[in-house]
Amino acid sequence: MKSETESATKRPHVVIVGAGFGGLACAQALGNTEIDVTVIDRRNHNLFQPLLYQVATAALSPADISEPIRRTLGRYENIHVVMAEVVSVDAPARTVILKDGGSILFDRLVLATGSTYNYFGHQDWQQHAPGLKSVHEARDIRHRLLLAFEKAERSTDEAEKRNLLTSVVIGGGPTGVEMAGAISELGRFMIAQDFRRLHPDQLTVLLIEAGPRILSTFPETLSRYASDYLAGIGVDIRLNTPVEDITAEGVQAGGTFLPASCIVWGAGVKASPAAEWLGIEPGAGGRLPVAPDLSVTGTAGIYALGDTALAVGKDRNPLPALAQVAKQQGIFLGRALKANLLFGKPIPTFHFRNRGNTAVIGRNAAIFDFGSWQIKGRLAWLLWALVHVYLLVNFEKRLLVSIQWIWRYSTRQRGARVIDETAVAATVPATEAKDRAAS
Amino acid sequence: MKSETESATKRPHVVIVGAGFGGLACAQALGNTEIDVTVIDRRNHNLFQPLLYQVATAALSPADISEPIRRTLGRYENIHVVMAEVVSVDAPARTVILKDGGSILFDRLVLATGSTYNYFGHQDWQQHAPGLKSVHEARDIRHRLLLAFEKAERSTDEAEKRNLLTSVVIGGGPTGVEMAGAISELGRFMIAQDFRRLHPDQLTVLLIEAGPRILSTFPETLSRYASDYLAGIGVDIRLNTPVEDITAEGVQAGGTFLPASCIVWGAGVKASPAAEWLGIEPGAGGRLPVAPDLSVTGTAGIYALGDTALAVGKDRNPLPALAQVAKQQGIFLGRALKANLLFGKPIPTFHFRNRGNTAVIGRNAAIFDFGSWQIKGRLAWLLWALVHVYLLVNFEKRLLVSIQWIWRYSTRQRGARVIDETAVAATVPATEAKDRAAS
Repeated sequence: MKSETESATKRPHVVIVGAGFGGLACAQALGNTEIDVTVIDRRNHNLFQPLLYQVATAALSPADISEPIRRTLGRYENIHVVMAEVVSVDAPARTVILKDGGSILFDRLVLATGSTYNYFGHQDWQQHAPGLKSVHEARDIRHRLLLAFEKAERSTDEAEKRNLLTSVVIGGGPTGVEMAGAISELGRFMIAQDFRRLHPDQLTVLLIEAGPRILSTFPETLSRYASDYLAGIGVDIRLNTPVEDITAEGVQAGGTFLPASCIVWGAGVKASPAAEWLGIEPGAGGRLPVAPDLSVTGTAGIYALGDTALAVGKDRNPLPALAQVAKQQGIFLGRALKANLLFGKPIPTFHFRNRGNTAVIGRNAAIFDFGSWQIKGRLAWLLWALVHVYLLVNFEKRLLVSIQWIWRYSTRQRGARVIDETAVAATVPATEAKDRAAS
Repeated sequence: MKSETESATKRPHVVIVGAGFGGLACAQALGNTEIDVTVIDRRNHNLFQPLLYQVATAALSPADISEPIRRTLGRYENIHVVMAEVVSVDAPARTVILKDGGSILFDRLVLATGSTYNYFGHQDWQQHAPGLKSVHEARDIRHRLLLAFEKAERSTDEAEKRNLLTSVVIGGGPTGVEMAGAISELGRFMIAQDFRRLHPDQLTVLLIEAGPRILSTFPETLSRYASDYLAGIGVDIRLNTPVEDITAEGVQAGGTFLPASCIVWGAGVKASPAAEWLGIEPGAGGRLPVAPDLSVTGTAGIYALGDTALAVGKDRNPLPALAQVAKQQGIFLGRALKANLLFGKPIPTFHFRNRGNTAVIGRNAAIFDFGSWQIKGRLAWLLWALVHVYLLVNFEKRLLVSIQWIWRYSTRQRGARVIDETAVAATVPATEAKDRAAS
């Protein structure tokens, strides 16, 4: 009798690991219901990754595109937020194990842990070529870029100056294209405006792609448009150029060594180690194979979504690792779990609706692929800006980002050109520039 | 004959070390003249220090109050900016020696290097109790504060929870008062809004002052107003309480050990080591004694201003280490050097005009002391906000900060609550919280 009373009063408990687009959408769909929800994330904030390249290129501040998870979920009485790192999942015991020794029991588990950059077995490359997945990495890239210009201004060695003014972006996907375009625009403007001893033509931005074209997930016409635009703003694109090695001095690619001061990695992602936690053999890209209802194959009550899940689309191909996929899956799963846990309804099949794929290339240039039709150029760029401002979490951030974009568009000035003192202490080298020593 | 021709074409060269309020004002006054100006700073940006406490308490982003020095001075063709660290000055050889081995010759040298926090011989305290002089320190304090709340939410040990929710601010000057008020307001709001397992009454903010009253440079009525206001928002003020020791666990003060998670140092500044560079015996607070024309006593062609200089006011007392003093001295010295170098005019005597002294205490509360009259409360707070927005370098930052303030005033939300991933990795402890382990 006692256990029956208990089970009658005990509310079901859904644990969501990861508060990215997918995890947050899932939690919100479960908000203010008779279900207990615990959201676990290593970070205290949700990061709007599509605009992270603008933090890396000194156009926005980290806080402009970050929102505390507690703030987003604060209005839901039934959601509890835990800032902690997950190290494993004990599926039979229905328990998530945390790094600090804590553990959390669940009735249903949603794995929405996203992805990290894939260095294809060369993890040591990461220190020289950060990716763009966290505020820390974006700030790191910003420091490298800005410091390189400061050093170049003071250098009297032409070869050193050339290397300092060279950036290499690895990977011709949307992130690589955005970064290459933004670095070229930032560099040319900053040099022309603020540096007395440098000339914009001394700037080199290389975009390196192992395959035969950039933006390979887009139609060829859009790839060609992007290539032409990038070439026009001074980006040197190297196709069919696989990376062989990365050091502190530069990149070895396609048989040539390219000395560079700033190297950015954007060449492919892999799922975070959720498969390892479960002891399950992962599918392509480290992703967890899931059934049409997003349940992880071979488990009960465990679901995966977004970059963590290897879900299959209508065309039998895996769904891409995109924010819109994660968000749609999160909303779907949240609603389905609610109906299942409260009313015993089965979880239906998830169907992805493609809202269009986009990449921004530069000032006034973006591309959109809606499947049956495409747009490119200034109109696409305006649409890109509107969509991204709209997708930001709240009115304050929308307003702040809009103002900074309008300001930047009219003045070309970059607002967030702050080099952290610790970065300077660590990396300013002993150049031999004897400023005015002979004057 | 040759040397005469040379001296006829060679333009005089003024070197300014430090691009704070004083150095920048001096450089701008020398802008677009027939004088070569070199501005040297360790940082690439000028930091609006009066608002740094708002970065530390997650209200603003570093970029909102930082401006690249190159951007501020970019419009002056005759000004050259060098990002480098000065290690000494060879006065007889009229040369500034840089850390990287470079050296810069000068005809006139202006030392505007500001001040650092004075730990009164206990430099090891700095790691536990950062001051508020740089973006790095402000971010450090922000991380400590926000992480402590996250840890407290997960702690099941009441003593640990109490320590995590305790902050100690050392020094009852304007910085200490601003920080104590801001931490109390931030903490209470965040707990009430976002943390399920904490109660605002668990928060403790201690303001420790060695002397008999806070804000001792202000009239007593304003000190009393500030004390009452702070007590009202939950700040516990301890007067006549000298600090004896600071460890990672807390502060030993007035014979008592106060365990705390976040310790902020605001107890007095000392000039940066310009006196050491010159091999001159410094005056009070490490400042360089200067003549009425701001020339450093015992040197020729070397000037000091702002926190670096020990200038004497009309009342024979040293001028305070305030932004307005530095700025007025910078403008004065820039104009005087121009008249001196181009037209041979002697450098006159500097006179400080007191524009009023202010401190902000909390939402709707600030104080202003104009010498013969004072204001306090909401009106003073509004004036404080207007003055500080006006003092920001450009229209974009004024707009961005205004919007964030208006937003925060209406919602009490803090926009910049981002904990950096590296900070988390370094400091999240292994608490034993077994979340829901028994559910």
